[in-house]
Amino acid sequence: MQAMFYEGNHAIRAGDCTPVAPAADEVKIKVSHCGICGTDLHIYHGVMDNRVTFPQIMGHEVSGVVDALGEEVTDLAVGDAVAVMPLDWCNDCPACRAGHNHICHNLKFLGIDTPGAFQSYWTVPAHTLHKLPADMNLAHGAMIEPLAVACHDVRLGRVQPDEYVAVLGGGPIGILIALVAKEAGATVLVSEINPFRLQLAQEFGLDAVNPTEIDLVEYVNQQTGTAGADVVFEVTGVQAGATVMTDLVRTRGRIVMVAIHGQPKEVALFRFFWRELEMVGARVYEHEDFARAIELAAAGDMPLDKIITDVRPLTELEAGFKLMEQGGGVMKILLKA
Amino acid sequence: MQAMFYEGNHAIRAGDCTPVAPAADEVKIKVSHCGICGTDLHIYHGVMDNRVTFPQIMGHEVSGVVDALGEEVTDLAVGDAVAVMPLDWCNDCPACRAGHNHICHNLKFLGIDTPGAFQSYWTVPAHTLHKLPADMNLAHGAMIEPLAVACHDVRLGRVQPDEYVAVLGGGPIGILIALVAKEAGATVLVSEINPFRLQLAQEFGLDAVNPTEIDLVEYVNQQTGTAGADVVFEVTGVQAGATVMTDLVRTRGRIVMVAIHGQPKEVALFRFFWRELEMVGARVYEHEDFARAIELAAAGDMPLDKIITDVRPLTELEAGFKLMEQGGGVMKILLKA
Repeated sequence: MQAMFYEGNHAIRAGDCTPVAPAADEVKIKVSHCGICGTDLHIYHGVMDNRVTFPQIMGHEVSGVVDALGEEVTDLAVGDAVAVMPLDWCNDCPACRAGHNHICHNLKFLGIDTPGAFQSYWTVPAHTLHKLPADMNLAHGAMIEPLAVACHDVRLGRVQPDEYVAVLGGGPIGILIALVAKEAGATVLVSEINPFRLQLAQEFGLDAVNPTEIDLVEYVNQQTGTAGADVVFEVTGVQAGATVMTDLVRTRGRIVMVAIHGQPKEVALFRFFWRELEMVGARVYEHEDFARAIELAAAGDMPLDKIITDVRPLTELEAGFKLMEQGGGVMKILLKA
Repeated sequence: MQAMFYEGNHAIRAGDCTPVAPAADEVKIKVSHCGICGTDLHIYHGVMDNRVTFPQIMGHEVSGVVDALGEEVTDLAVGDAVAVMPLDWCNDCPACRAGHNHICHNLKFLGIDTPGAFQSYWTVPAHTLHKLPADMNLAHGAMIEPLAVACHDVRLGRVQPDEYVAVLGGGPIGILIALVAKEAGATVLVSEINPFRLQLAQEFGLDAVNPTEIDLVEYVNQQTGTAGADVVFEVTGVQAGATVMTDLVRTRGRIVMVAIHGQPKEVALFRFFWRELEMVGARVYEHEDFARAIELAAAGDMPLDKIITDVRPLTELEAGFKLMEQGGGVMKILLKA
């Protein structure tokens, strides 16, 4: 029974997991798999030291099996396979009162603002749990959380069948957005510079190009009869993405802002005016996105086995971070508890 | 019978108007009033010399009376009072084919890309005309075009009764947006630095503040119980507006990009992600916006007489530009043909 602790200053330590008995409205999960998120890497890099509490157990892309139930929890049973929607909200801020509790102004993100899932047992509020089909591979179960991000992004982008969608950035979230948009009936282009990720996107039946090798705007105009893309997902987080997004999208088209831009970026506001563009931000997910993600994963149409490029023991968290830093042939790394 | 010609290099010349006989689908109007738009001032400043043809007759905020009809025009009669929606589109580009011909990729804006209304007679396509009520003051008739801009902006902002709206910039378009949003049932704040415009906004029953004298974000948070504005209209065109807009708007609120930002601006894209903000660009108008503007003006609820700060003879176009350059007590200047 182990837990992985981030102690600040790039230090990761393995220690004992202290299972927490569930309160009345909580559930204790025996963790199966937990993916390493880009946010975990940011925490490891010290970027979020002012937000986390040391020592911090990270991890929120989790699958597991119910181990113990709080007394008020009636809709689950010990042994049920589950995924966690790692959000806990206040129910009292302007966002919650307006029905947007997934982006509550006082949101606790489990695994960042509370202890996370890089441990053998994890105790969480019952309302965060989604039951998985009994026959679902629990490695796939750990992909439900990032897949739900993609479902949320595509939903907020209102992607329609036969639309042309450009996804800027082909990392795990970008690729999942592309696959969910394709599933929605769109023609999808992925723009990515990493050769491994480009090849993977192509294997998945997506059009995928390197924007440092071709003129992306010209390419999209060719593909769309000069109209431009119906929807652009900005998932790069860099200025090049923020610059090109407004040139790619058609008149009255939509830009979905998925990336976390730590600093303000230069944006062609003229283009918003001139083409009556729309941009919408998309953050995390709502319960319906989790439900849709489980449905998609259960249907077996998502190439999750190929997106999972590595499964390692929990104790190899630091090695996982090193792989992510190197880039190359990495997409999603899971840890097995 | 006169026309005012822009000859480049800040030169304006009065000359003869050459009335154009209407083609089969055109109408010749005897011009009554024509407002001076900020765009006309830009042209006068030489900013759009690569777009206009010399000598250029500017002017597009027009009211007049039908003087002659092309033979195919059956829904108007000589003597009818009219306003002009000064847009001519190609019907063949991706925007037109998608039903957005008001922002046609090959749009001809009458008075910029073709001769305009700063002359005694103006011949235009019949499809651009909106009939005015026979008893409408034709000075008010010249306000229909800018009022239609405001109706379009408020419509695209989906302003609802009881929403809190912040308008950044209290020039003619900003004030008209504020008034149309108020008419839609919103509580409206205008942010403006010109004391004359601030006072006028207050006279109109709008809350109006100077953002160099108060903390605008703190003020809006106070007014909205920390939620933020439901809708923000950015009408300043400067970096300060682009910076503050994302801090003013509530979670899942809307920003309407009305201003023409000639250069890219720094935008807090993080805030779009974090609060799932929406931004939509709004340019010119559609026929339904003209219809709504005429309805509002005809109802007499818009304080158009106070927004019109000057009515001068057509030949005083240059004096009008000088007044606009000085700022101060100027809102909308009309020329009487």
